[in-house]
Amino acid sequence: MRRIADSTVRRLSLYLRTLEGLEKEGRATVSSEDLAEQGGTTSAQVRKDLSFFGSFGKRGLGYAVPELAHRLRDILGLGREYRVAIIGAGNIGQALMRFRGFDQRGFHVIRVYDRDPAKVGCEWNGVVVQDEEELDTDLRADPVDMAIIVTPAPEAQRLADRLVEAGVKAILNFAPIQLRTPDDVVVKNVNLALELEALSYGLRHR
Amino acid sequence: MRRIADSTVRRLSLYLRTLEGLEKEGRATVSSEDLAEQGGTTSAQVRKDLSFFGSFGKRGLGYAVPELAHRLRDILGLGREYRVAIIGAGNIGQALMRFRGFDQRGFHVIRVYDRDPAKVGCEWNGVVVQDEEELDTDLRADPVDMAIIVTPAPEAQRLADRLVEAGVKAILNFAPIQLRTPDDVVVKNVNLALELEALSYGLRHR
Repeated sequence: MRRIADSTVRRLSLYLRTLEGLEKEGRATVSSEDLAEQGGTTSAQVRKDLSFFGSFGKRGLGYAVPELAHRLRDILGLGREYRVAIIGAGNIGQALMRFRGFDQRGFHVIRVYDRDPAKVGCEWNGVVVQDEEELDTDLRADPVDMAIIVTPAPEAQRLADRLVEAGVKAILNFAPIQLRTPDDVVVKNVNLALELEALSYGLRHR
Repeated sequence: MRRIADSTVRRLSLYLRTLEGLEKEGRATVSSEDLAEQGGTTSAQVRKDLSFFGSFGKRGLGYAVPELAHRLRDILGLGREYRVAIIGAGNIGQALMRFRGFDQRGFHVIRVYDRDPAKVGCEWNGVVVQDEEELDTDLRADPVDMAIIVTPAPEAQRLADRLVEAGVKAILNFAPIQLRTPDDVVVKNVNLALELEALSYGLRHR
């Protein structure tokens, strides 16, 4: 399969949310127009996005809701549960631990690390904060699927190196730096200040 | 100016961070290669991104650091301070209030609203949580430049409508729904569960 843009993957997730709502209501079919509205896009874009992954839907009948939901879950790799470690128990790290949106989607935070002795041993949401020193041996003995780095920028690369070394293949990075990782490691970045800068750019150029 | 992709704006923010670091070190010039490395991209991409905004730099000499930093701050609308309101004082809202990365970039959280009586009146980071009921009159009397919606999905659209009605032109939305807003309102979305789904997609299709 050819490389799909991040923005397409993002829309697939939004279509899936719509489909899951419709599944609960017992709806059998949905039009590309309805999917488009919920995903904030056009019906042509919906058809284009879905066409990357083969042929779905029938002209005039729309898409079969359970079938398309099942395919999208499969495409997005959501047919399973994921074990997640959070590295950094600061404000954002704590908020992520308590964030219910992760568990609901099959992403379970099972471990949290920090190097601050004042934080190590604290329990949040049933998970005890562990000493960062233990990270390497822990992850080798009992691997996680994903790690979320929520540390200050100067520590992030060193931690990413250790995570990769311990076998982690997927990292969500909140630190405001560009991580260098091997090609077989998937990295996504969330930079909250950058989001506000995108807004200020938008205000400036409306 | 023609519409610039979000991904380009994001890279401009990253180039600016590099330039600001170099300004502190007193460096006079920087090559597109150096900017590329910090921005996680290629020197061709750097030249292309900057060419949208006119001609910078001289072949063989690179870019003048203070001049390019100044231009990027201007392009990104960062030559001023912004007043920000946070709507929703839950886990993520609280973390954002305490997040130092915003103030450093000129985004000042001056007001927080929630509808939970247990939260109204609490003080975090010098800001007292106000009753959501007061939002409309407050924002008309003393406007903010941006609002950050950090509420559950079912409340987000209604709050966005009230913000728009009260004159807010830029919204950062953390609720997992697609907000409907007028064309002159800039909206950016942060969906943390979607970021993990992008990782699971990445793991599935490596």
